[in-house]
Amino acid sequence: MLEVKLLHASPLVVSDEAISKCWDKPSKSVDHMLERMERVGLKNKHGSVLEHVNYTWDIDGISRACLQELARHRHQSLSVKSTRYTLKELKEANDVGDFLVKTGDDNIDATNRMQLRSLQYILQQSSLPNDILKYAIPEAYKTSLVSTMNMRAFRNFLELRTSRAALWEIQNLALEMYKVIPDEHKFLFNDIIGGDNERMA
Amino acid sequence: MLEVKLLHASPLVVSDEAISKCWDKPSKSVDHMLERMERVGLKNKHGSVLEHVNYTWDIDGISRACLQELARHRHQSLSVKSTRYTLKELKEANDVGDFLVKTGDDNIDATNRMQLRSLQYILQQSSLPNDILKYAIPEAYKTSLVSTMNMRAFRNFLELRTSRAALWEIQNLALEMYKVIPDEHKFLFNDIIGGDNERMA
Amino acid sequence: MLEVKLLHASPLVVSDEAISKCWDKPSKSVDHMLERMERVGLKNKHGSVLEHVNYTWDIDGISRACLQELARHRHQSLSVKSTRYTLKELKEANDVGDFLVKTGDDNIDATNRMQLRSLQYILQQSSLPNDILKYAIPEAYKTSLVSTMNMRAFRNFLELRTSRAALWEIQNLALEMYKVIPDEHKFLFNDIIGGDNERMA
Amino acid sequence: MLEVKLLHASPLVVSDEAISKCWDKPSKSVDHMLERMERVGLKNKHGSVLEHVNYTWDIDGISRACLQELARHRHQSLSVKSTRYTLKELKEANDVGDFLVKTGDDNIDATNRMQLRSLQYILQQSSLPNDILKYAIPEAYKTSLVSTMNMRAFRNFLELRTSRAALWEIQNLALEMYKVIPDEHKFLFNDIIGGDNERMA
Repeated sequence: MLEVKLLHASPLVVSDEAISKCWDKPSKSVDHMLERMERVGLKNKHGSVLEHVNYTWDIDGISRACLQELARHRHQSLSVKSTRYTLKELKEANDVGDFLVKTGDDNIDATNRMQLRSLQYILQQSSLPNDILKYAIPEAYKTSLVSTMNMRAFRNFLELRTSRAALWEIQNLALEMYKVIPDEHKFLFNDIIGGDNERMA
Repeated sequence: MLEVKLLHASPLVVSDEAISKCWDKPSKSVDHMLERMERVGLKNKHGSVLEHVNYTWDIDGISRACLQELARHRHQSLSVKSTRYTLKELKEANDVGDFLVKTGDDNIDATNRMQLRSLQYILQQSSLPNDILKYAIPEAYKTSLVSTMNMRAFRNFLELRTSRAALWEIQNLALEMYKVIPDEHKFLFNDIIGGDNERMA
Repeated sequence: MLEVKLLHASPLVVSDEAISKCWDKPSKSVDHMLERMERVGLKNKHGSVLEHVNYTWDIDGISRACLQELARHRHQSLSVKSTRYTLKELKEANDVGDFLVKTGDDNIDATNRMQLRSLQYILQQSSLPNDILKYAIPEAYKTSLVSTMNMRAFRNFLELRTSRAALWEIQNLALEMYKVIPDEHKFLFNDIIGGDNERMA
Repeated sequence: MLEVKLLHASPLVVSDEAISKCWDKPSKSVDHMLERMERVGLKNKHGSVLEHVNYTWDIDGISRACLQELARHRHQSLSVKSTRYTLKELKEANDVGDFLVKTGDDNIDATNRMQLRSLQYILQQSSLPNDILKYAIPEAYKTSLVSTMNMRAFRNFLELRTSRAALWEIQNLALEMYKVIPDEHKFLFNDIIGGDNERMA
C-alpha cells in the first residue's frame, strides 16, 4: 500500500516575505498576502517566489518502476532505500508478495511472485552479493524514500504527473503528495488540481 | 548596517529520516541520530542527505557588489529588491549615505555619496525611467533580499565565502548567515567553521 | 558596443539522436528529423530533448546592471571578467567613457563619467585594493563574459528577456545571442521570435 | 554488450576562453592554455570554467538497475528509451536473453530469462497495456540512452562511480564513457583516473 506522509513544510509566509522584497512592499493583511501570492507566484515569470516554500515527504510503497520516473525530476532531493544494502530482507520473508506493488493484473502479479520466490531461493542457497542479486528484482518491487521539492518544482511535477497520459502509479503518487500538504497551501495549486479538473480521479 | 535574520529552518529530523531510508534503519537515540548525521552527511558521497534541510534568510543591507557574488551560487532561491521598481526611494532622501554600504575608505564613500546626489538631482528634475537611472547607481548601493539554500549548498557557500581570499563583505555575510541558523545545526559545519579555523575573524 | 560571438554550438543531430532513443525509432530523413524535433521539443513535456544542444557565447560590452539580470538564470555556466582582478585597467585610461555602456541619456552618462574620473584619481593617488575600489563603479560599467546554455534554457531566457517589459539592454542582448546561433537551429525558436512577433524590434 | 559512443564534445578552447575572461588575459600558447586549464579547472573553487565543455554520449546496453543509479546525477540531460513505448519488442523475440544484461551468475541470469519468457507469453496471449506489463521486467533489462554532461559534472560522476565501492556495472560504464572522450581532454581527469590510480581495472 502506498503511504505518503508530509514530514515538513515551510510556512507560506516565507514566500510572502520574498514578494515583499522585490517591490519593497509588505503585505497589508492576510487576505492581501494570499491574493498577492497567487497573482505573482502562478505567473511563470515570477514563479521563483514560490521556491522558498519547501516540502519534505516520506513515501513508502511505490514500485521501482515508479521511482524510475520520479527520480527524473532533477529539482528535487531524494534519499532512497538502497537495494544494495537491504536486499537480504527477502531471505526470511513468508510472503514475497508483501514486497510487490500490485498491478491489478493477476498474471503479472503471479509471475512477479514467482520471480521473487526464485530470488529468495537463490538468496538462501548461495552467498551472492546484493550487487548481483538485485538484477533479478522485477520493477514492481517496492521501495521507500524521502523527497524534498520546493513549491515551484512540485507544481511542475503535479502538472506533468497528474496528466491522464502519465503512468497510473505516478498519477496516484502525485495526488497523494498533494493531499498531504497543508490545506492553506492548496489554493496555489488551483490552476492544476481544480474541482472541474479532469485530471482528478 | 548588515542585518541577517533567519526566517525558517527545517528541523534536523528530516535529514535523519532520509538517512534511515537509505539503509532502512531508524536512528536509535538522539545521540545516535546526531553522530550518524555527521558521519554520513559530511562525506561528499552522501552529502545529499543534508539537502532535505532548508534555510530561508532575510538579508538586508548588502551592497549590489556583494549581490553580484551571492547570486552566482545557483543552488539557491533568491528574491531581490528590484532597482527597476524601487529607485524612486532616492528622490526625497535627506541623506543619500543611508543607501550606501560603507567601505571603510573615506574617499570612496565620499565619491559614492556625490554620485548618489547627482542621481537624486536628475531624479528630481526629470522623468527618466528607472531603467535608465539605475545605470548610475554605484555598486555600494544597498540591497535587500530573501535567500533559500539547503544545508549542502550552504556548506559549499560557507566554505568558499569564508575563505580569507573572498571579498570582505561576503565573508561577513557568510558568517552572519551561519550565526543565525539554529544552534543545534552547527555541529554539521564544524569542519568548515571551527574554533581553530583561521577563517573565523 | 555590445559584441556577441558564438564560440560553439552542438550539432542538431544530438537532439535527434535523443528523440530516436525515447521511442527507439531513428528519423527517416532530414525533413523528418526537423519536423519531429519541432513537434517533440517545443512541448513543455518533452523539452528535455533540446537540452543536449549547447551554445557557448562570448559576450563583450554589457553593463554590470545587465549582468545582474543575466546571472539570475541558473541553468547556465558563466565565466565573467572579475573587477576584483582587472580594475587597474582604469588607471591609465585616456577616456573613461570607453568603460561605460551608454544609456541614451546625456545626464546619466555624464555623471557616470565623472564618477569614473573620481575613481581613476583615487586609483592614481592611493594604493587601495580593488576590493574597496570596486564599490564605486557605476552599474553602467562594462563587463565581458563567456556563457554556456543549452537550448531549453536559452528558449526560456529568450522568452523572458525579449519581452517588451524586460530591461532594454537585456532585450538587445537576448536578440544578439539569438542572431548568432546557427541559422539551421532557428526554426526551433519560431514560437518565441517570429516574423509577426511584436517582441522583435 | 555495453556500447558507448561519443556523439559530441565541445572543443577545449571554450574553456580556455572562459579562463581568459575572468582575468582578462588570453593564453599565450597551446602549452600555456593546457597548463592553465589544469591549474585553474581542477581546483574546486574555479571548477566552473570546465562547465563550458559538454559531452554527449550514446549509451546502449546498460541495465535498468544501472539506469537507476545513473539518473540520480542531476547535472545531466538524459533521454532514455521508454519501456512505456517499446515493450512490444519482446513479443516476437526468439531469444529473450538478448534483452538482458548478464550478471556473471548463471542462476540469476536463468531466472531472469524465465521471467522474460513469462512476460513474453502474457504479451502474446493478452492485450495488456505496457504500463502494466512493464512491472514485470527484471532490473537486468537492457536500456539505451543519450546523456549530456559538462566536464565538471562528468568529473564528479567519474570520481564517485569509478570507486571500487560502486556498483560493478556503473564502474564499467564510467570507464567506457571516459575512454571515448577526446584524448586531448584526458589530462583534465588525471587526478581521478591515473596510471597509479587503483580505481582503474
